[in-house]
Amino acid sequence: MSWKTRMNEKIIQKDSCLVVGLDPMPSYFPEALPGGSIPEKIVHFNRMVIDAVADQCVAVKPQSAYYEIYGSQGILALEKTLAYAKQKGLLVILDAKRGDIGSTCEAYAKAYLEEGPLSVDALTVHPYLGRDGLLPFIHQAKAHEKGIFVLVKTSNPSSGDLQDLELPDHQLVYQKIARMLAELDDGQVVGAVVGGTYPQAAQQVRQQLPETCFLVPGYGAQGARGKDLTGFYDA
Amino acid sequence: MSWKTRMNEKIIQKDSCLVVGLDPMPSYFPEALPGGSIPEKIVHFNRMVIDAVADQCVAVKPQSAYYEIYGSQGILALEKTLAYAKQKGLLVILDAKRGDIGSTCEAYAKAYLEEGPLSVDALTVHPYLGRDGLLPFIHQAKAHEKGIFVLVKTSNPSSGDLQDLELPDHQLVYQKIARMLAELDDGQVVGAVVGGTYPQAAQQVRQQLPETCFLVPGYGAQGARGKDLTGFYDA
Repeated sequence: MSWKTRMNEKIIQKDSCLVVGLDPMPSYFPEALPGGSIPEKIVHFNRMVIDAVADQCVAVKPQSAYYEIYGSQGILALEKTLAYAKQKGLLVILDAKRGDIGSTCEAYAKAYLEEGPLSVDALTVHPYLGRDGLLPFIHQAKAHEKGIFVLVKTSNPSSGDLQDLELPDHQLVYQKIARMLAELDDGQVVGAVVGGTYPQAAQQVRQQLPETCFLVPGYGAQGARGKDLTGFYDA
Repeated sequence: MSWKTRMNEKIIQKDSCLVVGLDPMPSYFPEALPGGSIPEKIVHFNRMVIDAVADQCVAVKPQSAYYEIYGSQGILALEKTLAYAKQKGLLVILDAKRGDIGSTCEAYAKAYLEEGPLSVDALTVHPYLGRDGLLPFIHQAKAHEKGIFVLVKTSNPSSGDLQDLELPDHQLVYQKIARMLAELDDGQVVGAVVGGTYPQAAQQVRQQLPETCFLVPGYGAQGARGKDLTGFYDA
């Protein structure tokens, strides 16, 4: 069953399209959290979060950076987190924002989209290297019924430095990226990251990619609110 | 001592500006390589490569993807590789091409530029998120006398899909990124990735960033030859 079908079934089953981030920062941890080392505490903390949200969300989204801080022990904590989330019936989107030349993308796709210790359902991906930096992910995702989410318009304040540059045909760079995604895939494998902090951009990308799944970061701490998200849903 | 000074001293000491990639693929391994698991073999293979090149190169550049394939065990192999390279007096540039929103960049900078199991001398970084996705790396690199190399014009065949888009002022996107780097740093902390496969682009970026250190991938298997590299050196 394709990634998109699996995801849609989960969305209907749970009547939710919520994705919960797992960005464990020690400053969030309650004092009584079990575990000796920080990576051990991360596992316990994530299990608590997963237990709390499993009924209300379709997927969890660990942010790889917060595990990489602790090296191999942090990655072990990530592996244990992935295993627990899967056991609880959640999809896992790893927010690692990988992107490189073709041969290296094949290695990243092997790491995250094939069977292995860090295998997830979908991975976030940078578009800066162009088509041949995306195709290995797309091919592996198709082969293994996984997905990728390519950064189109990101949620951060400076996203416009590059993404909003206007081209001579009056398209903006992020719209050009959206068009490239439309050419590379029919929306079955490739999703788009579109920040909840830029609702107008979202409406434009939705017109270009009517069938594509959006991953919408920026809700909450970054400032996006429910009313900002309406344009993300329908073309 | 700043990263740039440390690197320049190493370049003068060794009369070399060679950086050797460590992208361990099991298909490269000799049959007699010690170690049971692939991550164990990676450590032995990298030690052999480091021993062979330590006198001729200033830095090694592990490509993170080839370690991430094996999850926490692969990252442990990376940690052991970093320790061995440092013991042999080599600088280490981790080719991980990280890039995210500001708070996540801080976490990546903590992982790779502060003291920790994956601490390296310099890290490669994506520019797609703009200034606030670069500044946390720049601040941490300054504080810890480390460096970053930002992708400007990459070596892969499709790099032009985004990087060569022409803007209304006739600048190309990668030139705009180079200009942004010039505004963010005086070349002490921020280097530029400029593919050896695009010598004309290199000349243009060199004019924009006369004092900046270039990391030049693409030599060898990707097709760049010695004659292609002359424009990378002087403005």
